[in-house]
Amino acid sequence: MIFDKAAVIGVGLMGASFALAAKKYGIAQRVSGHGRNRGTLERAVAAGVIDDYTMDLSELCRGADLILIATPVGAFRAIGAAIRPHLKEGAVVCDVGSVKGALVHDMEFFMPPGVHFVGVHPIKGSETSGFAGASSDFYQGAKCIVTPTEHTDKDAMSAVVEAWERIGCKIIYLSPEKHDEVFSLVSHLPHVAAYALVGSVAAVDKGFIEYAGSGFLDTTRVAMSSAEVWSDICLMNRDNILQHIDVYIERLQRIKRIMEAGDDKALKKEFDASGALRSKLKNV
Amino acid sequence: MIFDKAAVIGVGLMGASFALAAKKYGIAQRVSGHGRNRGTLERAVAAGVIDDYTMDLSELCRGADLILIATPVGAFRAIGAAIRPHLKEGAVVCDVGSVKGALVHDMEFFMPPGVHFVGVHPIKGSETSGFAGASSDFYQGAKCIVTPTEHTDKDAMSAVVEAWERIGCKIIYLSPEKHDEVFSLVSHLPHVAAYALVGSVAAVDKGFIEYAGSGFLDTTRVAMSSAEVWSDICLMNRDNILQHIDVYIERLQRIKRIMEAGDDKALKKEFDASGALRSKLKNV
Repeated sequence: MIFDKAAVIGVGLMGASFALAAKKYGIAQRVSGHGRNRGTLERAVAAGVIDDYTMDLSELCRGADLILIATPVGAFRAIGAAIRPHLKEGAVVCDVGSVKGALVHDMEFFMPPGVHFVGVHPIKGSETSGFAGASSDFYQGAKCIVTPTEHTDKDAMSAVVEAWERIGCKIIYLSPEKHDEVFSLVSHLPHVAAYALVGSVAAVDKGFIEYAGSGFLDTTRVAMSSAEVWSDICLMNRDNILQHIDVYIERLQRIKRIMEAGDDKALKKEFDASGALRSKLKNV
Repeated sequence: MIFDKAAVIGVGLMGASFALAAKKYGIAQRVSGHGRNRGTLERAVAAGVIDDYTMDLSELCRGADLILIATPVGAFRAIGAAIRPHLKEGAVVCDVGSVKGALVHDMEFFMPPGVHFVGVHPIKGSETSGFAGASSDFYQGAKCIVTPTEHTDKDAMSAVVEAWERIGCKIIYLSPEKHDEVFSLVSHLPHVAAYALVGSVAAVDKGFIEYAGSGFLDTTRVAMSSAEVWSDICLMNRDNILQHIDVYIERLQRIKRIMEAGDDKALKKEFDASGALRSKLKNV
């Protein structure tokens, strides 16, 4: 066991999967859950996802060695402020948020003396949400970004890294700022692209969606992700994403210009280049 | 048997799967293949995909009751002109092209007296290509668009519809023009979106692609489709696609404006609306 008591704030797909994995892989003796919906928490206890629950953050933090924040990122700062007076000395706080950057520095600032925050982002998206889809092996084989700063405590980070490695993740270190630049482009922008693609069908004729084939299904699958989670992410990584939407629009306009010129060779070259880069990724 | 001899022009994934299905489901006694690459055609015969091959279109058409054009759509008009003198009276010509519109009218125009063209578009995309992935059940359960015009011969269309139904398709009738408007939006635009998304990563930093998770993989999967096939489609359905790229850019700019305003409620609403429409599609 790395920790005695783990506390999970937000018992959705990510939090519940961590809770299940924490028990299976010897991360924590006991896992308590916290959430906004009592019914969900009761069902999570009944399903054996968490050992017990509370809707009171001070009670949740009592005796907790590890606190995992697994809510939409928009709630992080309020949670940091709320748990601050209740954290036990020596506790470690980490998260599963898709945005790091300034948020990591703010979360560090909220920690009282002797408590350490470590930014964690397991690369494990899903268009499903809620604990019903959770699994102790949800994180197996996933990349997991850890975002140390100059204030990160080495021992706290070691414990956090050991926990995520035990549940199957491959750790990659990035600064919080680099993390946000990279994931704006390879994760946040594709979500915006998918939402806008479905929005385009809605703008022209909703009925056309019945003709969709596998290409449309794949390309827009992430538009079924939680709107709450993704509006938070977009606003909290706003500068990067706005810049990358501009890059994206410029690439679309470049394709338009080639089409307008009727240049079949240039169009094929453009598509070939994208196909070659995409084909480098193993998991097709 | 609906036909004695079927001739398939283009023994790729679509053509080869039709050839296999034609034998399995009693569409044709014999299936001949035509293509640009002798090695591929020899392997297709050896694999039992086609009964024989020729690289000469006049020989291919000799005695053929059904001719299926399964090449990139950019080659259709040249093929129409080339096969015209060799088509047997009573023969039926159909295709699997993703663009209809003016192309269907032109193909009808190429047919000599007593030969009929019927436009067909099975909704069965794949980012793989080549006959190696072909299967006699490739078309099972697929929607298949048939695009009659005022010149379409009813008996020829009945025979074509029976063939595609026997191999597992569900037929939907659309005019060639409506077909192109609909598929510009739900198929061609998503391909352009995916090519441009991969292009955006290339424009910023190719190395970032290593951090891609399942969201990026899904959203960009169709960028691995044949660049030749898709540059043809984009140029042949150019007016619709250019218009829909503009709709798409406007939707992206709408999301940008909401993000710039920091309006979390409006952003969540925007994403929720897209999620709800996308969730209507059964095959997630």
